[in-house]
Amino acid sequence: MRIGFIGLGNMGGPMAANLLKAGFDLSVFDLSEPAVRTAVAQGAQRVGSPAELAAADVEVIISMLPAAQHVKQVYLGENGLLAKVQPGVLLIDSSTIDPHSAREVAAAAKAHGNPMLDAPVSGGTAGASAGTLTFMVGGETVDFERARPLLAAMGKNIVHCGGAGNGQVAKVANNLLLGISMIGVAEAMSLGVKLGMDAEVLAGIINTSSGRCWSSEVNNPLTGAPAARGYSGGFGSDLMLKDLGLASEAARQVRQPVLLGALAQQLYQAFSAQGNGQLDFSAIVKLYQQG
Amino acid sequence: MRIGFIGLGNMGGPMAANLLKAGFDLSVFDLSEPAVRTAVAQGAQRVGSPAELAAADVEVIISMLPAAQHVKQVYLGENGLLAKVQPGVLLIDSSTIDPHSAREVAAAAKAHGNPMLDAPVSGGTAGASAGTLTFMVGGETVDFERARPLLAAMGKNIVHCGGAGNGQVAKVANNLLLGISMIGVAEAMSLGVKLGMDAEVLAGIINTSSGRCWSSEVNNPLTGAPAARGYSGGFGSDLMLKDLGLASEAARQVRQPVLLGALAQQLYQAFSAQGNGQLDFSAIVKLYQQG
Amino acid sequence: MRIGFIGLGNMGGPMAANLLKAGFDLSVFDLSEPAVRTAVAQGAQRVGSPAELAAADVEVIISMLPAAQHVKQVYLGENGLLAKVQPGVLLIDSSTIDPHSAREVAAAAKAHGNPMLDAPVSGGTAGASAGTLTFMVGGETVDFERARPLLAAMGKNIVHCGGAGNGQVAKVANNLLLGISMIGVAEAMSLGVKLGMDAEVLAGIINTSSGRCWSSEVNNPLTGAPAARGYSGGFGSDLMLKDLGLASEAARQVRQPVLLGALAQQLYQAFSAQGNGQLDFSAIVKLYQQG
Amino acid sequence: MRIGFIGLGNMGGPMAANLLKAGFDLSVFDLSEPAVRTAVAQGAQRVGSPAELAAADVEVIISMLPAAQHVKQVYLGENGLLAKVQPGVLLIDSSTIDPHSAREVAAAAKAHGNPMLDAPVSGGTAGASAGTLTFMVGGETVDFERARPLLAAMGKNIVHCGGAGNGQVAKVANNLLLGISMIGVAEAMSLGVKLGMDAEVLAGIINTSSGRCWSSEVNNPLTGAPAARGYSGGFGSDLMLKDLGLASEAARQVRQPVLLGALAQQLYQAFSAQGNGQLDFSAIVKLYQQG
Repeated sequence: MRIGFIGLGNMGGPMAANLLKAGFDLSVFDLSEPAVRTAVAQGAQRVGSPAELAAADVEVIISMLPAAQHVKQVYLGENGLLAKVQPGVLLIDSSTIDPHSAREVAAAAKAHGNPMLDAPVSGGTAGASAGTLTFMVGGETVDFERARPLLAAMGKNIVHCGGAGNGQVAKVANNLLLGISMIGVAEAMSLGVKLGMDAEVLAGIINTSSGRCWSSEVNNPLTGAPAARGYSGGFGSDLMLKDLGLASEAARQVRQPVLLGALAQQLYQAFSAQGNGQLDFSAIVKLYQQG
Repeated sequence: MRIGFIGLGNMGGPMAANLLKAGFDLSVFDLSEPAVRTAVAQGAQRVGSPAELAAADVEVIISMLPAAQHVKQVYLGENGLLAKVQPGVLLIDSSTIDPHSAREVAAAAKAHGNPMLDAPVSGGTAGASAGTLTFMVGGETVDFERARPLLAAMGKNIVHCGGAGNGQVAKVANNLLLGISMIGVAEAMSLGVKLGMDAEVLAGIINTSSGRCWSSEVNNPLTGAPAARGYSGGFGSDLMLKDLGLASEAARQVRQPVLLGALAQQLYQAFSAQGNGQLDFSAIVKLYQQG
Repeated sequence: MRIGFIGLGNMGGPMAANLLKAGFDLSVFDLSEPAVRTAVAQGAQRVGSPAELAAADVEVIISMLPAAQHVKQVYLGENGLLAKVQPGVLLIDSSTIDPHSAREVAAAAKAHGNPMLDAPVSGGTAGASAGTLTFMVGGETVDFERARPLLAAMGKNIVHCGGAGNGQVAKVANNLLLGISMIGVAEAMSLGVKLGMDAEVLAGIINTSSGRCWSSEVNNPLTGAPAARGYSGGFGSDLMLKDLGLASEAARQVRQPVLLGALAQQLYQAFSAQGNGQLDFSAIVKLYQQG
Repeated sequence: MRIGFIGLGNMGGPMAANLLKAGFDLSVFDLSEPAVRTAVAQGAQRVGSPAELAAADVEVIISMLPAAQHVKQVYLGENGLLAKVQPGVLLIDSSTIDPHSAREVAAAAKAHGNPMLDAPVSGGTAGASAGTLTFMVGGETVDFERARPLLAAMGKNIVHCGGAGNGQVAKVANNLLLGISMIGVAEAMSLGVKLGMDAEVLAGIINTSSGRCWSSEVNNPLTGAPAARGYSGGFGSDLMLKDLGLASEAARQVRQPVLLGALAQQLYQAFSAQGNGQLDFSAIVKLYQQG
């Protein structure tokens, strides 16, 4: 199967590499010449623009881009994919963007005769390299089934979330909760320690009690692996800030209040403004250790 | 072993019953005559006051009271336990109160020659009846070991949390996090559903992702058992409100900010003011479904 | 002086009428035929499109549009003003939009040889009719002075806030504070009344004390004029919600935390979702009176 | 008229001095010997205890104490005032405490035959020295009128707020709003400046617009007098933290949500934990300037 791939960044690069490893025939586009060269060295063919990719004889096009504005430009822009692509080609956007934009692009694709899936991922660059990403997929069941073998070459957990945009909804909802519970763990752990408890003992109790969550068990801000390595690497605070921004924006569009979520966003904003955006998002506990 | 037991309410009553079943010799006190009669029918002996209990020949005294003011009155009051009890008698307070008060009473007990443990529980009235409570215990290790067989007759998970007051610290920290994550789940689920996702599908995705927590898995506000039964029974919203109040008060005493925690407290306060205090605490999702 | 005017809605309509009354020669455009007819009946000339207006012999063009997307379309779109307008024509946008978009449009105008001012207003439809609006103006001083006589025909208080975009900054900062202090008054008044005070007595004390603010004095949620008329009319809750959205979005762009502001936005979002968006924004006190 | 005065601290000391200056005959008690000596040098007579004061031939007793626990001890304690004082003696407590405690003490006084007023003040130590305090008074009208000449010797603005405890309610409600609006001003000013506006220009616009409040006009965190002197002196952040704590505690007791208020309390708590408790409360803007 011949596949087009747009966006060879920190996530897209290793994803494309895994598709090549799995034997797929890949045509790639990225603005970064080194990124393209790496993919070509791994066996991909280069194309000069999204439009050229669209004109090529591909069955599926996958995109992995930074934000909604890039997705709209690549798909809906003057020289965008939809202006050139053959009807019937399956479009898969793995960028993390707001559900409203995802649905807007999917509707335009459908009108042009192209099935489209939104398929944002979780798992980070490590998961992208290892091919163990989770894909949260929105779109028609038949298209989801068509995409599944491809996605399975890049990830381990491929979940159909419902119609167009629902992949983005699932991701935004999960990460909203993740941001809130991480700060919740930071507050609970900081309070317990300030009141005299040992952090490891407290984490142990919480993790066998009703407060337990992924953030307390796997990524505990005081006793977890990121803390042990000074919060370098991991899921960065700026990425959490971006996702909380998507969540509050999506909430604004449908008038759904997210009180703790909005406050969590502001706390990550304060933390980022202090220059900590590159630290693992569990480092937010530092806000609670001042003084 | 002869034991004194003070406070035969919704929690204390079944706890005392389990001690009697386990063969302990129990002298009990409560202001409620029916509560005392039930215990006597189960094999307990009645005493007329805490002071009388203190004067009796007991090795251990356990108390289970509503709030710090009652604990202080029973232990430190003019006719309180410490005024009468023999030095060496082990005192165990299973009430949920603020750590500061727990340490104050424990220090007074120590000065009087009595070892004391704070041993708040989780598990609710169901756990109290079934003898499956979790005990979070603060105090000296030697006293913890002395108490363990007794606590094991009432609970399943007996955890030593460190020195005096640390049982209360562990409980307050866990329940602070629990309240925050429950509201976090309520926000994430409500947002996802408002954006078009099926609640069961969303819960399934979250529970295999980084947003997963006890509140999303075991007590999900939209798809969990309490929701299915109209939020009756369970851990009541007013009890969560009380625990969040203890957490913010403990935080105030040590100047530790708890921003999400304070907001969670206010949301439960609003929910309680609307007349929902008796509903399971997952019913807080109703605040997010208005309109 | 010949002037072009785009956007004859609830605000723009009466503003144009005041310009006509002051003797200015007006060419107008709006998508709504009735709005255009009203203006024509007041002495304006109609044009068929923004481009046609740009091609006409006007010295100044004023726009009053709902949101940033409309402003961008009218100025930067394919058939937009900048594609047709003569260099030197002064452009004045009185829409309330985010500072970033205002600066983007102003920069494009400048590149095209057109001086531009952002000049959002406060004072509502009543102020627009009475010609008593406040104009907060961003742009060059020389352009501000050139615009002043025009603005003075529509408003009473014409304030220069600094360079391009600063009119929007002033408005967004003021209204962020307004939303916060209104909810602050709602909380303080509700608490005082719940604790047994008379609302009028409490308002009187606050208004001679350090809690006093525009929201307690002029628009008190319990004792003010909007409350007396059932919260109809006035500055609507949905407009406050929009402005708080602009504030938090502007804050996000520059990574400036606005914690109370974000929470205020969520509370207006909850209030709007309950169907109260048309009520005066002081009606937010109803959120605090449930139960 | 012979008056008893208990509590000669930073506030009580200058208040007592003003009573002496006005010609009242004063008997004073304080635990601090230097404070007593100062008052004696100004013409007061010393007594050895509250009980001794109660036994003395005074018509009115005024107290000015740090917190509710001290007020309860002085009035209700074993050797407290109510145990010794003659019925009919008017009791005036000027301490700032929670309304519930104020009403509890007033009820006990009434039962003992003593009329009682709660009369907390605002105006700080400067107002206490200058005799320009505001008194917010709760209690019976007849008692208020009886107290007025006395209070007028210490303050300028004497306001009757209704029945017992309402003086405290007025103060707690005003200061709740004050704390919220100060942080609101801090957020609005910080955002405006970060977006490129001059602080003085922005303050000028806000102060002639709907965002204006005491905190923007008199005590602006960026352009006000405290900022100009490095935030030394003034109404300290720790005092604001105390008052916000009283407000949230009073709200908890009557189940009245105060969402912005609770968040404001946490922000002052964070600020205090960073070691800034002695700075003027407008210094909270520093939280928004990190990074």
